[in-house]
Amino acid sequence: MTHNMRKYLIEFLGTTFLLATVVGSGIMGEALSEGNAAIALLANTIATGAILYVLITMFGPISGAHFNPAVSLVFFLKRDIKRDTFILYIIAQFCGGIVGVVIAHLMFDLELLQYSSRIRYGFSQWISELIAAFGLLLTILVTLREKSDSVPMSVGLYITAAYWFTASTSFANPAVTVARTFTDTFSGINYSGVLYFIIFQFVGAVFALFVYKLLYQERH
Amino acid sequence: MTHNMRKYLIEFLGTTFLLATVVGSGIMGEALSEGNAAIALLANTIATGAILYVLITMFGPISGAHFNPAVSLVFFLKRDIKRDTFILYIIAQFCGGIVGVVIAHLMFDLELLQYSSRIRYGFSQWISELIAAFGLLLTILVTLREKSDSVPMSVGLYITAAYWFTASTSFANPAVTVARTFTDTFSGINYSGVLYFIIFQFVGAVFALFVYKLLYQERH
Amino acid sequence: MTHNMRKYLIEFLGTTFLLATVVGSGIMGEALSEGNAAIALLANTIATGAILYVLITMFGPISGAHFNPAVSLVFFLKRDIKRDTFILYIIAQFCGGIVGVVIAHLMFDLELLQYSSRIRYGFSQWISELIAAFGLLLTILVTLREKSDSVPMSVGLYITAAYWFTASTSFANPAVTVARTFTDTFSGINYSGVLYFIIFQFVGAVFALFVYKLLYQERH
Amino acid sequence: MTHNMRKYLIEFLGTTFLLATVVGSGIMGEALSEGNAAIALLANTIATGAILYVLITMFGPISGAHFNPAVSLVFFLKRDIKRDTFILYIIAQFCGGIVGVVIAHLMFDLELLQYSSRIRYGFSQWISELIAAFGLLLTILVTLREKSDSVPMSVGLYITAAYWFTASTSFANPAVTVARTFTDTFSGINYSGVLYFIIFQFVGAVFALFVYKLLYQERH
Repeated sequence: MTHNMRKYLIEFLGTTFLLATVVGSGIMGEALSEGNAAIALLANTIATGAILYVLITMFGPISGAHFNPAVSLVFFLKRDIKRDTFILYIIAQFCGGIVGVVIAHLMFDLELLQYSSRIRYGFSQWISELIAAFGLLLTILVTLREKSDSVPMSVGLYITAAYWFTASTSFANPAVTVARTFTDTFSGINYSGVLYFIIFQFVGAVFALFVYKLLYQERH
Repeated sequence: MTHNMRKYLIEFLGTTFLLATVVGSGIMGEALSEGNAAIALLANTIATGAILYVLITMFGPISGAHFNPAVSLVFFLKRDIKRDTFILYIIAQFCGGIVGVVIAHLMFDLELLQYSSRIRYGFSQWISELIAAFGLLLTILVTLREKSDSVPMSVGLYITAAYWFTASTSFANPAVTVARTFTDTFSGINYSGVLYFIIFQFVGAVFALFVYKLLYQERH
Repeated sequence: MTHNMRKYLIEFLGTTFLLATVVGSGIMGEALSEGNAAIALLANTIATGAILYVLITMFGPISGAHFNPAVSLVFFLKRDIKRDTFILYIIAQFCGGIVGVVIAHLMFDLELLQYSSRIRYGFSQWISELIAAFGLLLTILVTLREKSDSVPMSVGLYITAAYWFTASTSFANPAVTVARTFTDTFSGINYSGVLYFIIFQFVGAVFALFVYKLLYQERH
Repeated sequence: MTHNMRKYLIEFLGTTFLLATVVGSGIMGEALSEGNAAIALLANTIATGAILYVLITMFGPISGAHFNPAVSLVFFLKRDIKRDTFILYIIAQFCGGIVGVVIAHLMFDLELLQYSSRIRYGFSQWISELIAAFGLLLTILVTLREKSDSVPMSVGLYITAAYWFTASTSFANPAVTVARTFTDTFSGINYSGVLYFIIFQFVGAVFALFVYKLLYQERH
């Protein structure tokens, strides 16, 4: 396998596992928690934060472990990855995300592709996504520069926090957002909200790059 | 941006994110936990501990990642930062804290500035704040000396523990205390309790510096 | 004690502690959680993830800290361990697992050997085990290569996530599966499901080795 | 302050914070969890595991961060500390433990010294303490030898697991056991059970030293 093919496969595999975890742990959490949404979300949070540490640790050295088109966009704008890589990364991420949802449904014996009826819409949600993505990208950019060994733990714990401090439970990832339209379970999102989520995620991510450049422009 | 401006901006940004997390996760935890305060506080704890690790890891190398006037005071008394830095740090921290509360309210579609009706008052609360701040500063001072790489994890886990072992849920931070008067949600504090909280926090912090000097005076 | 004897003893001791933790924390979680299975599973998850970090950190340098016949099989197929080691490892693991269950029962004053009546059967369970074991082995193989110091944390957090993202709560380990037939408590599994669990675990593990080789074949 | 005085003070201070955390978080957990003991114990567990990481990280380089007479005994038997140090360590630990309980009561506005009415008695409890202490000491001895940087995390996570896998919630520490007779709250223990707890803790600890020597005798 060529070095590049390996990268794309890793982005695919990583996003697959990420979504299988987000959706699967949402299903399990809801099934066991007897309607207590806080406990379901706690399970969802712990599983997601944990798998992010695992995936970024193992796959970071190969592909950078983006698993997120907003992350890939920022690295493309920073000229850390080329346009072709950028395009193939986001294709791998969107495909991996959907496959991850299908695998979660397969494990829980549910219909493989579903359409979420859960409305997540409105300014409160959108500003949440903007801030969630801004914080995520600022965390990645600054931590990568200042203490790159801590990136897996920092991203895992950032998302752990952001699940709770945002009104949207912090999707912060366009591939995750699209994939979660295909599950009518705890973590789903109705397609009506997707476009706004993605726009605000990209705006937050690009704004993080702007702040990052502001902070470090002298040193460039 | 000058090196100093960067530091002040970092103290502002970090305290903003800290308060957005404390207040936002309190709102989310309370909303989902159906009145079970232990589960709400657990969510609040996990989110706060997590974001502290993230923020101190990324911003520690630039500003020291105080996000806390009691911490800045101790470093000023230790002559690690100058008076001008000290003053500008605490201004940045108080402003950042309030902006963080506003952002949390914005994300959850609540009135942007509120006045907390939650009374936190009395000797039990104050001695809790003294001990919480004493422990926090002793952790920071000793860990910075003995194993500085562990500071982000140690501070995150110290606050995780202190949320539960104190009667006040461990504010341990004057900027956090003031900011939390502006939210009438789970993590709020009525203004009546603020002055005492801050006094006992500073006393605890300065006492930690005293114990630290006692422990290490030979080596100076 | 010879170097080899030490390895076998470690594999025995480690699997003993792993099972004592899985079964014991399941009993405690169920006893205290008043029928809320999500809270019981959360306790079970946290205890298991924690002990995996502890055991792999301490015993990894001696035996590799497999505690899992599927892991030992993959290292045998990779020619990292010899056939005799492989056979003695899995004997030690199966024995250790059963002893661990007995110790858990001893601590909780229950009959020492029990037969689980909990049916875990069906395609949903089996595909869960296949994916759980695939992810576990891929995590181990890639992390060992790319960032071996992170293996204890990665395995602990992988299992933390997999408890929740699979329908089977991720046994992912034939010795654990057999041992858990001997407890009629929270974590038990009726013997009827064991053979399928083990087959799908081995298939998942070997498939991870295949993907690993695909990813890294150029560098060999 | 002399180097030795510093060590004794550290053992005192560390055990004080440990007990303030164990008892304080037990009180808070029970107060908020509306009778759901699993959630109270979860809070207790998380706070205790977290503070152990913090205390061992900061105080390990000075005193070894025992905070536990069973640990000090084993290091005395291993000839790592002298008899005088051993005696003064355990005095500091017992005093620190009781002061920690008093401080917890002070923070929660309870009678400062209480006598626990909670019976913890019987073979199930004692064998739990033996195994808890055995595992704790084996973890410390082996991790210190093989990967000493991980000791704070390993001990914190070992106790996190042991809270749940033992029937006694794993005291595993004679100073903690005695101190907890002085609180009639969640974490208390009636004096009737203390002697047996301590005997079984010491037996477990010494047995761990025996197994450790068996494992490593060749390399000595």
